[in-house]
Amino acid sequence: MSIEALLAQRMARLKSSAIRELLKHSKMDRVISLAGGIPSDALFDFEGLNQATQLAITEQPKSAFQYGLTEGSPLLRERIVALCALRGLKTHADEIVVTAGSQQALDLVMRATVNPQDIFVVERPTYLAALQTLELAEARIMSVSSDENGMVVDELATLLETQRIKGVYLVPNFGNPSGATLSAARRKQLVELAARYDFIIVEDDPYGELRFTDERHATLYQLAKEAGYADRVIYTSSFSKILAPGLRLGWAILPEWLLHKVAIIKQAADLHASSLSQTIAEYYLGLNRLPAQIEKIRQAYKVKGELLSSLMEKELGGVITFNQPKGGMFLWARFRQEFNTTDWLQKTLEQGVVFVPGEFFFAEKPDYSTLRLSFATATEEQMHEAVTRLRRTL
Amino acid sequence: MSIEALLAQRMARLKSSAIRELLKHSKMDRVISLAGGIPSDALFDFEGLNQATQLAITEQPKSAFQYGLTEGSPLLRERIVALCALRGLKTHADEIVVTAGSQQALDLVMRATVNPQDIFVVERPTYLAALQTLELAEARIMSVSSDENGMVVDELATLLETQRIKGVYLVPNFGNPSGATLSAARRKQLVELAARYDFIIVEDDPYGELRFTDERHATLYQLAKEAGYADRVIYTSSFSKILAPGLRLGWAILPEWLLHKVAIIKQAADLHASSLSQTIAEYYLGLNRLPAQIEKIRQAYKVKGELLSSLMEKELGGVITFNQPKGGMFLWARFRQEFNTTDWLQKTLEQGVVFVPGEFFFAEKPDYSTLRLSFATATEEQMHEAVTRLRRTL
Repeated sequence: MSIEALLAQRMARLKSSAIRELLKHSKMDRVISLAGGIPSDALFDFEGLNQATQLAITEQPKSAFQYGLTEGSPLLRERIVALCALRGLKTHADEIVVTAGSQQALDLVMRATVNPQDIFVVERPTYLAALQTLELAEARIMSVSSDENGMVVDELATLLETQRIKGVYLVPNFGNPSGATLSAARRKQLVELAARYDFIIVEDDPYGELRFTDERHATLYQLAKEAGYADRVIYTSSFSKILAPGLRLGWAILPEWLLHKVAIIKQAADLHASSLSQTIAEYYLGLNRLPAQIEKIRQAYKVKGELLSSLMEKELGGVITFNQPKGGMFLWARFRQEFNTTDWLQKTLEQGVVFVPGEFFFAEKPDYSTLRLSFATATEEQMHEAVTRLRRTL
Repeated sequence: MSIEALLAQRMARLKSSAIRELLKHSKMDRVISLAGGIPSDALFDFEGLNQATQLAITEQPKSAFQYGLTEGSPLLRERIVALCALRGLKTHADEIVVTAGSQQALDLVMRATVNPQDIFVVERPTYLAALQTLELAEARIMSVSSDENGMVVDELATLLETQRIKGVYLVPNFGNPSGATLSAARRKQLVELAARYDFIIVEDDPYGELRFTDERHATLYQLAKEAGYADRVIYTSSFSKILAPGLRLGWAILPEWLLHKVAIIKQAADLHASSLSQTIAEYYLGLNRLPAQIEKIRQAYKVKGELLSSLMEKELGGVITFNQPKGGMFLWARFRQEFNTTDWLQKTLEQGVVFVPGEFFFAEKPDYSTLRLSFATATEEQMHEAVTRLRRTL
């Protein structure tokens, strides 16, 4: 597909969507937004960010404001290695490329790996902006369904019997929008399939740290590494949900065969991530405040997620079904009967509540009865009011 | 060409080049680097940057650390409009997209406009990383020669008689690496050709403010606008050479037909430029220190450029010819006799001087007798020593 045609299609989709409206309306005072995919800035560690910024501009002013290396600052990459170790990922600084959020990591990886018409498989539903990177890379996007245990890997296995695929993109922990987490058994199965059918897995993990329970699964990266297939998994993550998205900092762990390709595209794309942001992140990680900050976010989102769940169950449980979030920022819900949430949004807007209709998260076969609610930014009072208003429209 | 083949080609080129060696060697203490394309951090306005950073994180902490709009902060775009007005460009905030340096502006524009095999014309020599963006977009790159008055537009006119082209990329002011500036007559001619043959001009202007004389030409953007062809010119610029590259901030002025396409690709590429960098730039521009800062850089580079010119003339004028720089950061030189500067670099490295061999700046038909010397970062003492060492190798 030509770039023009692709963009025309995408623009039509965005225009026909309620997303631009959402953005407009969600800024109105009386409207309560459960639509945003943004973290709560009420929880930002401004004290620590301030300290780190002061250190960056007084101790390292030249490197904070000068050009840097395309792959990212060596010290920051070392600190990311340490951060990954806490997640059970064993990696090295020279396998890491620092990116402008994990969003850029996805775009770079897709540009480096996808040739036009290569098949990439995503979950149904999946992260909207990952679809955009796949479309720009002119991938042929296929999808398999997901449930409360994440991607239904059996469906993928069936697909692989007849289709040669380039890769699989998924958010295995507290997915956006599904909130679901891939089970241990499915993780193992997915890695085995990648080895057997020779495709890559893009393991996008921005939310993994934001778990509300003690349950924790090995990363696909680590499972693959231990099974001798580390070259099949690309792990991407971000400081956006655990520190501050405005820094635009994320990273990718890349196998050797892909690393130089990605670095060359990164150089053409923007030379390197903000030196100032990188220097601040170096100092912030050096202050050792991140573990407490993650714990703070985790506790706050847990309370909010539980509140939204209980309100939804109480007020709308008769018509809507969902799984209680075990981490992350999102509650993914489905009407029990046939329903169109995009149409419903017009009504809820009149009542002053916005959410994201589920159809926009599907590469194909949209389920119009679904919706994504974020519990990250609304206050408890707003959540009470929002759910009351939602009920009123039904 | 497949992405794999393209990348393999590019990587082979980079490996066979001296560029990686340059980077390694130019960090050695005894080696004097005239190779870098980086501005002098000895001239950075650390006081102003510090003030602006303090204001950003104390007055606007939430917007500095939170997600922002893909097109960039509205206030920063307003301030960029005012900055452009000082350059004689009349634009509006809603025509501007803030990017991660002008490098990203180039990449986004190429991704949005170029279909595989579309012809894009560049100068010979041209900016290396612009070639990279064109290659990633799978453009067919053609080139026309340049002289002390910039791109030889007559050659382009001849080309246009037989070739349909998508666009022209050039740095019209103090080009990298040529140092040349496009004459007023050629500017007019180029804009007329773009209107007549319906192609776009990507006017990349990172160095325009760094002029050493009072001579100043109208931008291609403004000339096109006044002639009624504003939709043919994309103007890109950057804060990297006038403020601080580590912020990774640049911008593009885009015609309406291209603006939404670029914004959609920008969203997939990295969502938006660093909020922190944008907030700092807003405050810095509000402090009204930029005019004095530009004047300071201009004066310092003028002195350095004149010194390097006089040293080169005195010590190497018998074997090397060049035009004295009238602005920017680079002196572009050529051996009077057949010579290979890539081979020469091995010898000069032994003597402790590095430069960039000219061949790497050519899309085709490389002139091996050329070289680029930067006068931005070396001290006066280092320049004396470097030129003495260069002479010693001949």
